[in-house]
Amino acid sequence: MSYQLLKGKKGLIFGALNEQSIAWKTAERAYEEGASFVLTNTPVSLRMGNIGELAQKCNTVVIPADATKVSDLENLVTEGTSYLGGNFDFVLHSIGMSPNVRKGRTYDDLDYAYLMQTLDVSAISFHKVLQVCRKLDAINEWGSVVALSYVAAQRTLYGYNDMADAKAMLESIARSFGYIYGREKRIRINTISQSPTLTTAGGGIFGFQNLLDFADRMSPLGNASAEECADYIITLFSDLTRKVTMQNLFHDGGYSSMGMSLRAMQIYNEGLEYQDVRTDRSKKRTPGA
Amino acid sequence: MSYQLLKGKKGLIFGALNEQSIAWKTAERAYEEGASFVLTNTPVSLRMGNIGELAQKCNTVVIPADATKVSDLENLVTEGTSYLGGNFDFVLHSIGMSPNVRKGRTYDDLDYAYLMQTLDVSAISFHKVLQVCRKLDAINEWGSVVALSYVAAQRTLYGYNDMADAKAMLESIARSFGYIYGREKRIRINTISQSPTLTTAGGGIFGFQNLLDFADRMSPLGNASAEECADYIITLFSDLTRKVTMQNLFHDGGYSSMGMSLRAMQIYNEGLEYQDVRTDRSKKRTPGA
Amino acid sequence: MSYQLLKGKKGLIFGALNEQSIAWKTAERAYEEGASFVLTNTPVSLRMGNIGELAQKCNTVVIPADATKVSDLENLVTEGTSYLGGNFDFVLHSIGMSPNVRKGRTYDDLDYAYLMQTLDVSAISFHKVLQVCRKLDAINEWGSVVALSYVAAQRTLYGYNDMADAKAMLESIARSFGYIYGREKRIRINTISQSPTLTTAGGGIFGFQNLLDFADRMSPLGNASAEECADYIITLFSDLTRKVTMQNLFHDGGYSSMGMSLRAMQIYNEGLEYQDVRTDRSKKRTPGA
Amino acid sequence: MSYQLLKGKKGLIFGALNEQSIAWKTAERAYEEGASFVLTNTPVSLRMGNIGELAQKCNTVVIPADATKVSDLENLVTEGTSYLGGNFDFVLHSIGMSPNVRKGRTYDDLDYAYLMQTLDVSAISFHKVLQVCRKLDAINEWGSVVALSYVAAQRTLYGYNDMADAKAMLESIARSFGYIYGREKRIRINTISQSPTLTTAGGGIFGFQNLLDFADRMSPLGNASAEECADYIITLFSDLTRKVTMQNLFHDGGYSSMGMSLRAMQIYNEGLEYQDVRTDRSKKRTPGA
Repeated sequence: MSYQLLKGKKGLIFGALNEQSIAWKTAERAYEEGASFVLTNTPVSLRMGNIGELAQKCNTVVIPADATKVSDLENLVTEGTSYLGGNFDFVLHSIGMSPNVRKGRTYDDLDYAYLMQTLDVSAISFHKVLQVCRKLDAINEWGSVVALSYVAAQRTLYGYNDMADAKAMLESIARSFGYIYGREKRIRINTISQSPTLTTAGGGIFGFQNLLDFADRMSPLGNASAEECADYIITLFSDLTRKVTMQNLFHDGGYSSMGMSLRAMQIYNEGLEYQDVRTDRSKKRTPGA
Repeated sequence: MSYQLLKGKKGLIFGALNEQSIAWKTAERAYEEGASFVLTNTPVSLRMGNIGELAQKCNTVVIPADATKVSDLENLVTEGTSYLGGNFDFVLHSIGMSPNVRKGRTYDDLDYAYLMQTLDVSAISFHKVLQVCRKLDAINEWGSVVALSYVAAQRTLYGYNDMADAKAMLESIARSFGYIYGREKRIRINTISQSPTLTTAGGGIFGFQNLLDFADRMSPLGNASAEECADYIITLFSDLTRKVTMQNLFHDGGYSSMGMSLRAMQIYNEGLEYQDVRTDRSKKRTPGA
Repeated sequence: MSYQLLKGKKGLIFGALNEQSIAWKTAERAYEEGASFVLTNTPVSLRMGNIGELAQKCNTVVIPADATKVSDLENLVTEGTSYLGGNFDFVLHSIGMSPNVRKGRTYDDLDYAYLMQTLDVSAISFHKVLQVCRKLDAINEWGSVVALSYVAAQRTLYGYNDMADAKAMLESIARSFGYIYGREKRIRINTISQSPTLTTAGGGIFGFQNLLDFADRMSPLGNASAEECADYIITLFSDLTRKVTMQNLFHDGGYSSMGMSLRAMQIYNEGLEYQDVRTDRSKKRTPGA
Repeated sequence: MSYQLLKGKKGLIFGALNEQSIAWKTAERAYEEGASFVLTNTPVSLRMGNIGELAQKCNTVVIPADATKVSDLENLVTEGTSYLGGNFDFVLHSIGMSPNVRKGRTYDDLDYAYLMQTLDVSAISFHKVLQVCRKLDAINEWGSVVALSYVAAQRTLYGYNDMADAKAMLESIARSFGYIYGREKRIRINTISQSPTLTTAGGGIFGFQNLLDFADRMSPLGNASAEECADYIITLFSDLTRKVTMQNLFHDGGYSSMGMSLRAMQIYNEGLEYQDVRTDRSKKRTPGA
């Protein structure tokens, strides 16, 4: 499937680790839609994943960069635009990581140095990308920038930890910089609040598999996949969405607007029933009690 | 417990049916806090409940009125202010009813005459109360008006049906009229979005008991009771909240800001487990399959 | 410009009155993008506008229907799908009208029969369209339905009157029906909250021209035009946005996420200055006062 | 005025600098309402302001603490509960500061070390207060914690700079920690989104005076004052609001729910007129052009 929606457009894509990554799928789709772009990730991620395959497939290069380092970003933007022979028309920011989550520090026992890292990697890096691009004047008029967020920015989910605060800040940065970049160069900046997705990033959350099941049954259309997210991102990079900016856009099969679905409630009802069943049994087992 | 927070204030309270009603609890608390007020309900409700007892307890009268009829409301406001010897300082609107829910018409099979009734009773009646009060200049400067809403105005819950649309409209009326009554007479208008509550009104919803359980386990503080709602309403009627207006205020133990709690997820997990258990059993039972 | 995003898709478009209409622009763009569709409007509107030209241009027909009448809608859907030789893949609802606004009844002096009409035309008609389509099973799996809304559903604007309440209800209907139609047939339902637009519908609001100026200066990207809205609608009708549902999507150049822009504030500052200038002058003119 | 709403309650109040401070007014009101509490601020602030007077008036002590330093907070909490002879029932966090704003670094030219300070002082300090209190088990069951926020967390205002992102994060921390502290000890955590207020903190924003005027004319009830905010905080510290948690509560005279008021629009209209007047004049002045 190709509509050539991004024909002639140039871009920059952060965060493709492996085939599960939303950024990976977006790169594949952007390529199909006629875009050229450069890929980037941290040196560590480059070793972990197989982004080289993706670059080959999309006929492009990978430029390593730590998105928390301004000098790395300056180099990335300079090399990237030079490689592409022009400024970016779109940028995808798909970066997030919490050392507190990784190291098992719960939200009431945060390590504050780790928290600073969570914020730097997952939120401030977005500001750095934007500030560097703006200073180097590296995004074309009517360009489109997207970062990936999650509903935890609005509603607390156990176990999501300090990533919730980072996502709230990420969405705020999209608004704050969206104002400046919009009035100045007609560049739009949005976040997509995506369904929980079985990527390497999502996998680290405690009890993630069942949460995925819950979200799926709550959502009238089911969870959105990484492929579907890539499709949606393509529309936001295209010229058909030029006046959408400073928004957090839910791409979640309806989850965010649900209070309770019948389908999810049925499982919950069975859980209540199961509790009763087991309570009854244990009562029977302990007649002397 | 009494702080005399409403000392000398006069009010009008819609919707006290029986002891479970939030309006009933509010009347009791307002009386304790030093207010005088008149009670009102539809002639039908007066026969169903025992509001007479409440009136006696609060040393006041009941003035029957159908809140969908402007002439009834005019009479109510005139008689009410006359009985109290002055204008109202506070008004509570706790009215809601859906003939579609009552008659079992699902949301994809609405009867449109019923829908008009749902809207008239549950939302437009609020506008009528406000418009009549304003035309008769029956609310004092810095008065406070509260209507009761539910999170279904923002998020869809199966079975809540056309009441969701009515509540969305109710909250909009609070904003629209709040602007006018605020700039003109410093009168504030808010809605409270209350936990699901086991009142006569709430009881009609399909599967309500388990939904109540889910909401309770999702809410870090548990569901808010009718008594607690009455306490909260007292603060909104007091002089301490004068600059809060046009807001929808969640009084729900934190439910509205939750994505998923560990406590609720545990039940859900058991439901999933129970499904597996039963699937296994049925597999064992049907070895020939 | 054509990407063939709607190639082979069939649709139903309500509300094209004249060349200014968003529905008109959407029809033109949908046609360019490879869709076939039928147009509809009320008999009165058909006489006022020149929708016949549009039909000719898009190689289709106009089927008159009053969207508040279920029988008209049933006929429309039956005739429409018959004409197209298949079910709808997309539906656009662009209908709104307030007799209270037209007759100059302010929000604190509403005529309640008019209010019922406002709701019926501007909100309930959306439910009727959906309910009729569903009963006749007239929308294909993964179909997309869009209705047009306005930020007045969230924030009060003087003069917008009972249309604010109607839009709040409209957005609620999108959620409520989106749940049902989503779980059942994967059909998504969204509203677009569009910049104030100089259409025939928008023109009736008091002081509209200056409000348009304010919104434009507040929005980093400026107000969104009807053409741009049509482009955006095309993306929502396409297969690239399949998991977006039950959302209210702001298409407004960033307005909804702005508190205050420098550009708008400069005009406001001049207004304050002008007041001072005139006050000074009038002081000078009246030295004897 | 005193209702003894906080009779017997103990508290901790951050951020009273001088008589304009919301924290100062809150201390005065809490004292009137029967509470005892300790005051705290940074050593620098203690030298700048006159908090000693406040302590004397409220019959209490000031315990210096830098809220970004965990060891300072541990000392504060230990000394504070010891001085009061019991745990806290309420905590007020009124702390915010941006070195980027102070040093004139615009949002597209942020110094990232400064940004870290903005976040640490204005948002993370709130988490530190909560984490320290929890580890020392220093807040009683059903305690109430409030932090002060601003609408910039949702909507961009030129000049508010990185404080917008800090406030978004602050509100997220209230939700994230509200979940944990709620389920564990029934402690509620909320933020109040207050009107722009002429405090020392607010005064640093560019063009603040006219923004204040705009907010005032937009708000049907006018801007909320520091005194009124103190009153509102008292209700949130009282036992009457026990089930309100994880909320951001607008205390702003209705501003947050306004799209446009007639009163603000009139000034804007005059600004447009003034532009025309001056354009005409300049045209007259340059007839040869």
